[in-house]
Amino acid sequence: VDPFMLVAPQMIEDESIVADADTDSDSDEEPDAFARIAELEKQLESMQGDWKDFQKDLADESIAKKKKPTMKIGGRIHADYWGFPESDPLVDEIESGAGNPVQDPQDRVLFRRLRLEMSGTVPNNMLWKMQLDFNNPQTPEMKDAYLGWSNLPNNQVLLLGNQKRPLGLDHLNSSRFNIFAERPMAVEAFNEDARRFGLAMYGYTDDEATGWAYGVYNLENINTDGRFIGDNLQLGAYGRLWGSPWYDETSGGRGYWHMAVSGGIASPDGDAAYDADTNNNDGRFRTRPSARSSQRWLDTGRIPGISSYEVIGLESILNIGSLQITGEYLFNSLQRDGITPAALPTLGPYDATIDDDFFFHGGYIYASYFLTGEFNPYKRTTGTLNRVTPFENFFLVDRCNGCRGNGWGALQVALRYDYLDLTDGGINGGVGNLVTAGLNWHWTAYSKLQTNMIWGSIDDSGLGTTATSGDFAIFGTRFMIDF
Amino acid sequence: VDPFMLVAPQMIEDESIVADADTDSDSDEEPDAFARIAELEKQLESMQGDWKDFQKDLADESIAKKKKPTMKIGGRIHADYWGFPESDPLVDEIESGAGNPVQDPQDRVLFRRLRLEMSGTVPNNMLWKMQLDFNNPQTPEMKDAYLGWSNLPNNQVLLLGNQKRPLGLDHLNSSRFNIFAERPMAVEAFNEDARRFGLAMYGYTDDEATGWAYGVYNLENINTDGRFIGDNLQLGAYGRLWGSPWYDETSGGRGYWHMAVSGGIASPDGDAAYDADTNNNDGRFRTRPSARSSQRWLDTGRIPGISSYEVIGLESILNIGSLQITGEYLFNSLQRDGITPAALPTLGPYDATIDDDFFFHGGYIYASYFLTGEFNPYKRTTGTLNRVTPFENFFLVDRCNGCRGNGWGALQVALRYDYLDLTDGGINGGVGNLVTAGLNWHWTAYSKLQTNMIWGSIDDSGLGTTATSGDFAIFGTRFMIDF
Amino acid sequence: VDPFMLVAPQMIEDESIVADADTDSDSDEEPDAFARIAELEKQLESMQGDWKDFQKDLADESIAKKKKPTMKIGGRIHADYWGFPESDPLVDEIESGAGNPVQDPQDRVLFRRLRLEMSGTVPNNMLWKMQLDFNNPQTPEMKDAYLGWSNLPNNQVLLLGNQKRPLGLDHLNSSRFNIFAERPMAVEAFNEDARRFGLAMYGYTDDEATGWAYGVYNLENINTDGRFIGDNLQLGAYGRLWGSPWYDETSGGRGYWHMAVSGGIASPDGDAAYDADTNNNDGRFRTRPSARSSQRWLDTGRIPGISSYEVIGLESILNIGSLQITGEYLFNSLQRDGITPAALPTLGPYDATIDDDFFFHGGYIYASYFLTGEFNPYKRTTGTLNRVTPFENFFLVDRCNGCRGNGWGALQVALRYDYLDLTDGGINGGVGNLVTAGLNWHWTAYSKLQTNMIWGSIDDSGLGTTATSGDFAIFGTRFMIDF
Repeated sequence: VDPFMLVAPQMIEDESIVADADTDSDSDEEPDAFARIAELEKQLESMQGDWKDFQKDLADESIAKKKKPTMKIGGRIHADYWGFPESDPLVDEIESGAGNPVQDPQDRVLFRRLRLEMSGTVPNNMLWKMQLDFNNPQTPEMKDAYLGWSNLPNNQVLLLGNQKRPLGLDHLNSSRFNIFAERPMAVEAFNEDARRFGLAMYGYTDDEATGWAYGVYNLENINTDGRFIGDNLQLGAYGRLWGSPWYDETSGGRGYWHMAVSGGIASPDGDAAYDADTNNNDGRFRTRPSARSSQRWLDTGRIPGISSYEVIGLESILNIGSLQITGEYLFNSLQRDGITPAALPTLGPYDATIDDDFFFHGGYIYASYFLTGEFNPYKRTTGTLNRVTPFENFFLVDRCNGCRGNGWGALQVALRYDYLDLTDGGINGGVGNLVTAGLNWHWTAYSKLQTNMIWGSIDDSGLGTTATSGDFAIFGTRFMIDF
Repeated sequence: VDPFMLVAPQMIEDESIVADADTDSDSDEEPDAFARIAELEKQLESMQGDWKDFQKDLADESIAKKKKPTMKIGGRIHADYWGFPESDPLVDEIESGAGNPVQDPQDRVLFRRLRLEMSGTVPNNMLWKMQLDFNNPQTPEMKDAYLGWSNLPNNQVLLLGNQKRPLGLDHLNSSRFNIFAERPMAVEAFNEDARRFGLAMYGYTDDEATGWAYGVYNLENINTDGRFIGDNLQLGAYGRLWGSPWYDETSGGRGYWHMAVSGGIASPDGDAAYDADTNNNDGRFRTRPSARSSQRWLDTGRIPGISSYEVIGLESILNIGSLQITGEYLFNSLQRDGITPAALPTLGPYDATIDDDFFFHGGYIYASYFLTGEFNPYKRTTGTLNRVTPFENFFLVDRCNGCRGNGWGALQVALRYDYLDLTDGGINGGVGNLVTAGLNWHWTAYSKLQTNMIWGSIDDSGLGTTATSGDFAIFGTRFMIDF
Repeated sequence: VDPFMLVAPQMIEDESIVADADTDSDSDEEPDAFARIAELEKQLESMQGDWKDFQKDLADESIAKKKKPTMKIGGRIHADYWGFPESDPLVDEIESGAGNPVQDPQDRVLFRRLRLEMSGTVPNNMLWKMQLDFNNPQTPEMKDAYLGWSNLPNNQVLLLGNQKRPLGLDHLNSSRFNIFAERPMAVEAFNEDARRFGLAMYGYTDDEATGWAYGVYNLENINTDGRFIGDNLQLGAYGRLWGSPWYDETSGGRGYWHMAVSGGIASPDGDAAYDADTNNNDGRFRTRPSARSSQRWLDTGRIPGISSYEVIGLESILNIGSLQITGEYLFNSLQRDGITPAALPTLGPYDATIDDDFFFHGGYIYASYFLTGEFNPYKRTTGTLNRVTPFENFFLVDRCNGCRGNGWGALQVALRYDYLDLTDGGINGGVGNLVTAGLNWHWTAYSKLQTNMIWGSIDDSGLGTTATSGDFAIFGTRFMIDF
């Protein structure tokens, strides 16, 4: 019996295979079997060859890629509206920039950030980053701009260039992930605009429970001109040590406790106005009122004769599911040396004589809560907040089947108290108290709406001529997307 | 009889298959058949596994990509030469910027556009765009800069940020696709630089025969500083409704008729010069002579006391194969209110007294024709012109076989008449008449050469001191590429 | 005998194939053979179909890509420190910018380059490039910015836009590949900032032994404003012809001899200060001291009445393995015409009367050597230096196996003598002599550290008020990465 005769007839038809049931007579069809096997073997071999070639191409491509620099491009768009429903004359004077107590702080629509970001690696172990912000297109700003070495022992990275000084959690958090639209006064005052040109080391332990950053920086902000020119280099050494002793891995980080201490010691050029060096005196502390005003409402000016200062910061984040409670406090003690000319600038918030030592300080505390149940992630290796992912994105779309679908995103409420004292020993930079109520509507993991209402007061300020204190209210809203 | 014995001998040799013809004796070769089938099955199964894995990887990658933001990068380079072979003293006075009737308009070579464009999506349904123009590298400009929601019901998209106000077809056409180098006076005067910060909705019907755009915008041009600061928000509401009742699908759109009506109502701050607000008075209408001059040759200045204006525009495009006839007309009526100070600025094109109501208007008509048979496509969903693709690209290259090849691209001629009246009721912005002859040489779908010759006159102008009218001739040529 | 009965039993089990050894009785199992072959054929065919579809998709994608514009993005970050340990009063006066002989040249930290580069093609044979430098973010500069045609006969490319004038090897070398941090005085003085708006042709012979570049350029540097406005177009024609008569292909180019001659003839507008044209007089030659000072330390000023000049340059590179010896010399002869006003500017380095003809000249020679055995590659098609690849990258990393690994990169030493004479016939631009010692530490092919120590003097200078000559010493270091 020919074994092939029992192939189901319909299958034979389907496959157009003709196998004769009579093994004796129609033998001219029978060679098919070996021929077909041989043909199959040939074809399969050819195809395996093709496949191997293809896999080799992919592998070669992948290896070639590893030998070439890589590049990643991203960016962010932050569009703001800020209104100033209420303000006292002191505030009007400061914000007008010309001491005009009649002109209210003006409402505004603006791009807070219009940022293009590029980063990449160079084989084997170098990296670079370049961020440019075009929120004011005619005056682009450099943000991160550095080159460095990765893969150093202890998970360390060494970076040279423009980068954030490791002081103040809220400044180290990306503006994409911060809970309030603008940073608290104390963090901004003692680490104005955060980024400076420096050389810094970043690392963390293998279990990610502890991390550190430390470096040496030039004190001048070169974000807009990209250069420091002056014989007094005005160096500052800053460092930060953080840990997350509690981090609930099982829930994907819905519970954690972060704490950190940071500090810096700096030697500004207090005599810049009197010597032949071209650099400015970077012994100056100032901040906006946690809102996007035109002027800094608390400001010590460039303190004449300042020779050194030391700053210490303490941080804590306690996150339990949707609830987060975060606080920081920063202390800054400053020294003037004897060579300062007696004469103070006639402009500026100074008494007739000022002391040789000062102490400025400030901090904030906030609580935030997700009404929709999400939580605010934390990145252990950097000791900063991370990207929030809503359970459900916000959308209102046509579905294929004709009906419309929608989702509502994530809702987060937050309340912050925010304090800064820049008035001491004859320097009247002002004492600020702020309460900020915030509502964040996360549309997607990459986009959200931030709304802040701020009530505040300034006291003991030398920046106005008609009053030393004043109240104000500010409303701000920000539309954000990043990519 | 063994079915395998009849395999053709040469095939057996070719394939190195050894099958013994004697089924009885040499049975040790015969197991090959099942063994080989089994081996084939194993190998095929293994390969199918590989293939499935690979397909799964591709699918996973594709799904992962859909969950990540996407980004597209492009740009355009437009390099211009402009010459001014002839000009009367009025024109010399205006163009010199200092009222110098001796200095002719100066010839120039310039980058008209050096633009970097990025756009992308954020899952599930948000999008963004960011365009920066570096034609004057030291003063970058923001162009489109927005975030928004797509996939809204009725093919709608909602955008927030800097975007074109929907008024005037020629402004809504991309500068990459416009037939003349510079936009007509009326379109530019009543929608200067087109883009404003606003919130706007865009949509079209499923059959693409009708589309719409409407939104609310701040009136100030923030292309260079990215911010509006002032208590008077100066809002304007603009909208456009377009349709293409005839669109010849069968020829791929070689024939179509587009018509549209657009309009706007705006409330500029006519008292900006007299109150404490920091914003400017954006009640101003001005334009260059459809050419890249340094100054605007027709200009009302900032009209003191202007409180509101309404503008209406009508559009039509009739395209029959290589021939296109396009026209627009815009009407602008303006009102001043009583609180305006009597005193007019001493500078500016004003009579001693000016009326309380004005009427400005203008438009253009052009015919264009492809000598080489191509046509000018139209995009129904936006109601604007689209990219021209030459039948044959322009090139002159070495061919592999040693001989040289060439192609000639596409040639398009065009003629435009262009009119604008900005003189009324004591405001002497000028009355302009222009004739522009154009020759476009499309090298590829992405590059072309535009050549324009312009003859024109200005009458009833208050911008000069020596004359109220003058003639001029301008020659311009533009080398364009986009990517 | 059934041929299938001899299949090894364990194989049958493994593959779950059940073939009955008894061909007579259990015939219902035997159809397996044909069925299995048929099934294999079907599956293989289906898979071949999938594979063909996939290959077709890849091919289609590849073809579609070829019809679309392509884009490549890259950039470079150069971060510098420059110190001025020693300087005489003449140098202090010049560098202060205000003639202050007390203020030393100030030390500086700066981004020398923070560059974003994009280039691409448009099918079939057009190309474009756009480079923007944000080293001073508030004042971006345009570098290469052009469009053009490739694939022209004789390997030629025709470019229109901002591009380097073909004069001076050291300027044509990319700043990524140059051996010293800053370019020699003579090359910079006679081809300041290199790039101008022009139309130029580039080509080379098929054997790459000879290459050429020639073009016509506007003389004004429009890197920061992107536009030239003025009735006097101030054209210059420049060309360069290079060859590499010796190029050792077998060693991959470790040995070569490059020589070139370049030249230019230009007609600046010497009367720009006295006529109604808005353009400047671009008859000016100046340079920094081969270091990143604020001011140009040798400078003729804008030479009044200059009507034409001709410049000739000679180049040679001899590379033998790790050793390279390179030299250039440039000669510039200039003519003033009779219509120049007799009165010279009161400011500027001029004697009471100046001649009608001048001759300026300068050059340099350097030797460089790799201590670690690498060599400095050369690109024959452009006649310029190319990227150095270290034998071993510099790194210090954690290896997977717990121990630490390191590599040391490549070390290159170099010494340059550098001369420029800009003092002749009453124009006292200065005579400069420099010796530069350089040490380059190549970390990877894409990153390095350059260190330069410069000792120099200026003589016969009219730029100071207290002295006509002075010495100086400069130290510079640059951290570089490109991608």
